Amino acid sequence: MDIEREKKLISEKKYSILKEDLINIPPIDVADFLDTLEEKESLLIFRLLPKGMAAEVFAHLSAERQAVLFNLVNESELRSILEDLFFDDKVDLLEEMPANVVKKILKNTSEVERKLINQFLMYPDYSAGSLMTIEFVDLKKEMTIKEALESVRKNAPDKETIYTCYVTDAERHLEGTISLKDLVLADGEVKVGDIMKKKPMCVNTHDDQEDIADLFKRYDLLALPVVDNEHRLVGIITVDDIVDVIEEEATEDIYKLGAVEPTDEEYITAGIFKLARKRIVWLIFLMISATLTEFIIVSFDDKLKLFGLSAFIPLLMDTGGNAGAQASTVVIRSIVLGEVNFKDLLKVIWKEIRIGVTVGPILAVLNFTRIYFISGRPFGVALTVTLTLMATILVAKMLGGILPLCAKKLKLDPAIMASPLITTMVDSIALIIFFTIASLLLVS
Amino acid sequence: MDIEREKKLISEKKYSILKEDLINIPPIDVADFLDTLEEKESLLIFRLLPKGMAAEVFAHLSAERQAVLFNLVNESELRSILEDLFFDDKVDLLEEMPANVVKKILKNTSEVERKLINQFLMYPDYSAGSLMTIEFVDLKKEMTIKEALESVRKNAPDKETIYTCYVTDAERHLEGTISLKDLVLADGEVKVGDIMKKKPMCVNTHDDQEDIADLFKRYDLLALPVVDNEHRLVGIITVDDIVDVIEEEATEDIYKLGAVEPTDEEYITAGIFKLARKRIVWLIFLMISATLTEFIIVSFDDKLKLFGLSAFIPLLMDTGGNAGAQASTVVIRSIVLGEVNFKDLLKVIWKEIRIGVTVGPILAVLNFTRIYFISGRPFGVALTVTLTLMATILVAKMLGGILPLCAKKLKLDPAIMASPLITTMVDSIALIIFFTIASLLLVS
Repeated sequence: MDIEREKKLISEKKYSILKEDLINIPPIDVADFLDTLEEKESLLIFRLLPKGMAAEVFAHLSAERQAVLFNLVNESELRSILEDLFFDDKVDLLEEMPANVVKKILKNTSEVERKLINQFLMYPDYSAGSLMTIEFVDLKKEMTIKEALESVRKNAPDKETIYTCYVTDAERHLEGTISLKDLVLADGEVKVGDIMKKKPMCVNTHDDQEDIADLFKRYDLLALPVVDNEHRLVGIITVDDIVDVIEEEATEDIYKLGAVEPTDEEYITAGIFKLARKRIVWLIFLMISATLTEFIIVSFDDKLKLFGLSAFIPLLMDTGGNAGAQASTVVIRSIVLGEVNFKDLLKVIWKEIRIGVTVGPILAVLNFTRIYFISGRPFGVALTVTLTLMATILVAKMLGGILPLCAKKLKLDPAIMASPLITTMVDSIALIIFFTIASLLLVS
Repeated sequence: MDIEREKKLISEKKYSILKEDLINIPPIDVADFLDTLEEKESLLIFRLLPKGMAAEVFAHLSAERQAVLFNLVNESELRSILEDLFFDDKVDLLEEMPANVVKKILKNTSEVERKLINQFLMYPDYSAGSLMTIEFVDLKKEMTIKEALESVRKNAPDKETIYTCYVTDAERHLEGTISLKDLVLADGEVKVGDIMKKKPMCVNTHDDQEDIADLFKRYDLLALPVVDNEHRLVGIITVDDIVDVIEEEATEDIYKLGAVEPTDEEYITAGIFKLARKRIVWLIFLMISATLTEFIIVSFDDKLKLFGLSAFIPLLMDTGGNAGAQASTVVIRSIVLGEVNFKDLLKVIWKEIRIGVTVGPILAVLNFTRIYFISGRPFGVALTVTLTLMATILVAKMLGGILPLCAKKLKLDPAIMASPLITTMVDSIALIIFFTIASLLLVS
């Protein structure tokens, strides 16, 4: 949308042209535009929107702006917005509004819907129940295709998605599904029960969103029915929500890889203490683990002082840590994507050994050349550092491959074996290798 | 599916029961099952599949098994599979088959389709062109809804998705879109041109898949039309492919954060040299960067020897690196998700300063307690280490926030400023802070 143009239309009070413009702009863009306006102005423009569009724009506004508008509009406008909102948007809204607005909303909600809302608020986070919508088309198997299409026509304008219709019995048990495509393509006199897909794939209200996303990915689904423990159809999950889930899960994985506890909130709006709390636990744990390196260095201190080996510690630690981080990153991602699991342990170890044996010598040659030929350090020192480097890379690659798989086997999240923890472990191992080789080569 | 049951049916040669079973199993699961069978056996079972399903199962087989089957089937079977394959699956197939199979396929492809295939193979990787399918329903605006539905019924069984239909003029220019939902809900006598959505959102064949995925996410789309430079409709992109793109892009980001060059191949099947090559460049670059730490230590070596400070180097480096990695992980992800950009630089810096000031003292107290009270080191040493720790955390948090945003501003990928590079930088800075504070507190 052309924001300058719309702002100009507002300042010139050309509301009818503005209205024409807004109708042709996607609701989410209109919402973002309203978020940038002053409160009174945004109410004015919001009132220009046609009834059907208003609720959709409203659902996309920021929580702050939603609360402001709910306080500014009159009762009948409020009721009209609530009527047009999709049920899942209404539940989301209630979770985010301040208490006085929630009260106002519930006052304008029917007894039946209030009960349903309560039930929705009780589904665990990240479960199918918290993700589903209750707007769907349900049909009966005795209907003919013609009757079914008639029913779709009558009930559909309300429904978030009608591309799959659900066939239920009198007790709302899920009996089958039929796509709108099949309805349109079939002969009008055939019975729904004859062409519906029986025993359709479905999930339970308490199933985890990550597993559900895997089903959508694997079977290229557009929607999936959600049933309760009695196999009664209670809602559907649509692919647009799954797209968000996949993104959320990727963010969660990336945070864990960076030793940050995942959060739902956006970085830029989250509070400092919340952000700090998400980071402090890992920092403390890793700092305490790192004290091990101190003890190792202290116990080998005599040799260090003699040959100035301490100067090489950071280089060995960094390179070892990076080599391990690479392996663990790739293996953790492969586990998440379901490409690798514990039974591949030996294959992964063998693979990482070969990678370590391939990259190690290349780095070793570069390193030896610099230390011995360019910096002119003693041959023994250059050799000690170089051998340590190769051995550390090999061990780091193997640990990076093994530990995420073991975590998975122990039913822990493989992502805890991400670079920060691997790096800390590799540091200690690198130091032990370093001083052991130094003792053998230099001190004897 | 119940693999044991199907294997038993095969061994007992109960093919008609097996056939009944397979028809009700999703094609991708049947394909995975065939992949586990012996070659001859898999051909036998493949031949049981009904015509429509066979091509779909075939498209999901592993590339090796596809090549094997293509060599085993006769000409007419081959032609039948090719006929039923969706066009985009056929193009994917040609990219993966060995030369002799490609020859066999092209021999059984019409001149017109061969030209189209050539055109598809020329679209750049990760572009809209390489992602789209050419199977879609196109309508004319002069049609009535009734005629349009008739046309959908006639042409649809071929089409990958019919939930959005596309309205084109005589020169194939895209004029509008109309959803199957609107077709079904509208009055039969209305003209398509009157209710179609004019100026629909569309992308160009050369647009990048990541940008297209962003459109799907923002606007909750199911499909998007692809036009060429003359605005002629050439294909559509469907949401199931976008789901894969989002996952691919997340994998790419995660790899970059782990200092591994992204690859399309699965870890478990990729060759050693390919995997090693994806890792060696970063390892070399980071190793060379880390040599800076060596020079810093050497130049301060005298003081080190006096106070045994070298034992604390790994701890300071690790903790600083982790603190920086946390900040850069969060900021990089926020940039990718479009929540933060360069104009937020000051906000990000201020945020990270406050986080650093919050977590730093907590770690410092723990650290001082351990070094001074528990390990009984001199007060000056404990103070030096503790002050360095706080300063390093602060600097690391700031760098972790600033550098990804600067990379973005310079049109570089923010992910290069991920933990490995930040860690290496923070290491040098930590050492300089350490020795500076040591000089001031201990040597004077």
